[in-house]
Amino acid sequence: MDKIKVIGFDADDTLWVNEPYYQELEQELCLLMADYLPAADVSKQLFRTEMGNMELYGYGAKAFILSVIETAIKVSNGIVPAAVIQEIVDLGKELIRRDIELLDGIDKILPQLQDKYRLIVATKGDLLDQERKLRKSGLLPFFHHIEIMSDKQEADYKKLLSRLDIAPEEFLMVGNSLKSDILPVVALGGQGVYVPFHTTWQHESVTETGKNYHQIEHISELLNILGQ
Amino acid sequence: MDKIKVIGFDADDTLWVNEPYYQELEQELCLLMADYLPAADVSKQLFRTEMGNMELYGYGAKAFILSVIETAIKVSNGIVPAAVIQEIVDLGKELIRRDIELLDGIDKILPQLQDKYRLIVATKGDLLDQERKLRKSGLLPFFHHIEIMSDKQEADYKKLLSRLDIAPEEFLMVGNSLKSDILPVVALGGQGVYVPFHTTWQHESVTETGKNYHQIEHISELLNILGQ
Repeated sequence: MDKIKVIGFDADDTLWVNEPYYQELEQELCLLMADYLPAADVSKQLFRTEMGNMELYGYGAKAFILSVIETAIKVSNGIVPAAVIQEIVDLGKELIRRDIELLDGIDKILPQLQDKYRLIVATKGDLLDQERKLRKSGLLPFFHHIEIMSDKQEADYKKLLSRLDIAPEEFLMVGNSLKSDILPVVALGGQGVYVPFHTTWQHESVTETGKNYHQIEHISELLNILGQ
Repeated sequence: MDKIKVIGFDADDTLWVNEPYYQELEQELCLLMADYLPAADVSKQLFRTEMGNMELYGYGAKAFILSVIETAIKVSNGIVPAAVIQEIVDLGKELIRRDIELLDGIDKILPQLQDKYRLIVATKGDLLDQERKLRKSGLLPFFHHIEIMSDKQEADYKKLLSRLDIAPEEFLMVGNSLKSDILPVVALGGQGVYVPFHTTWQHESVTETGKNYHQIEHISELLNILGQ
């Protein structure tokens, strides 16, 4: 860990609460669709729609809202009233407007790391939405660089490291998604610290293969891993 | 012009055709809404909805599709059938999938500038969508850096220049929007070259104030301005 110069943090469900808000909207959709299909089937259809739209829409709030609208039309066999679509649009706007709830310990650990490491945020999602969340979070002063990525695969991290002008072994990534935050960074020769969040989007879950990363329960344990 | 080290290009309607495709979708919306309101009023309502959503959704294709859906619901007084909403969703996907049509002369000028200047793209819009358009355009090899910005105001350009580690007088920005590409850069002390496109989104139009920038009709004239 002596080589680490830059620590990257995922944002959603690593710095602050996110996925539960998306799941709340999903539950609202299930309620709105209760006349047409059981909740479990609505959820299944939503996930299928999201995956079908991923290549075109990418990640983030607007992509999600568009997929929820499309799901409502599909699930209702095209008879859902426009007023219900408008309700979904309004719920989507509420989702974007929500207050930021920092995860426990984040506001303590960042100041402790800031002097010794360059801290960055590396996150997927809507550009404007993620920028706004960062501003609202009050965490911006702790970060040297914000990278909003259209995807988080090995090639995307490679580009990031070259932009940061560092070698993979100088980089440590902290996040709640094995698939997006940890495994691609470890594959490149970097370090990964996995902090599971109680709720994970189906799309982000993955079966572990080997274990060449660290796993902690609380962000404060990051200090031990870094040998501080 | 001797000081210029970096040339920034706007993307939509500077490198390739964009706004006409958005206006085509707007016209389709007007047709779909013909039973409810005259086309001119539908367009007015769409623009009002887009402006109302700007702070929340930002720029880009997904923001536009969401605003078109909301407009259809509003214009129809909430009685538009879900099938029409689905048609809008499908038109939106077509918009995202469209082929890239380079503006005349772009493929000639970039290779001529590439050796002498660092070329970058500075564009607003959906992250994934703009990245995809750049990939499809075949222009990626000409650019050192791609900056996808949530907005293009003075402060945004200031951040960009500091990231590029250059002084304003070393930067020249080329674009089709006085408001987003030219005036903020000139205000910072940079150079602006305005290349009007035949179609401009209402939101991007501005009344000129003084004229401390260059205006050309065809991108090939950029070489004269640079004294090449």
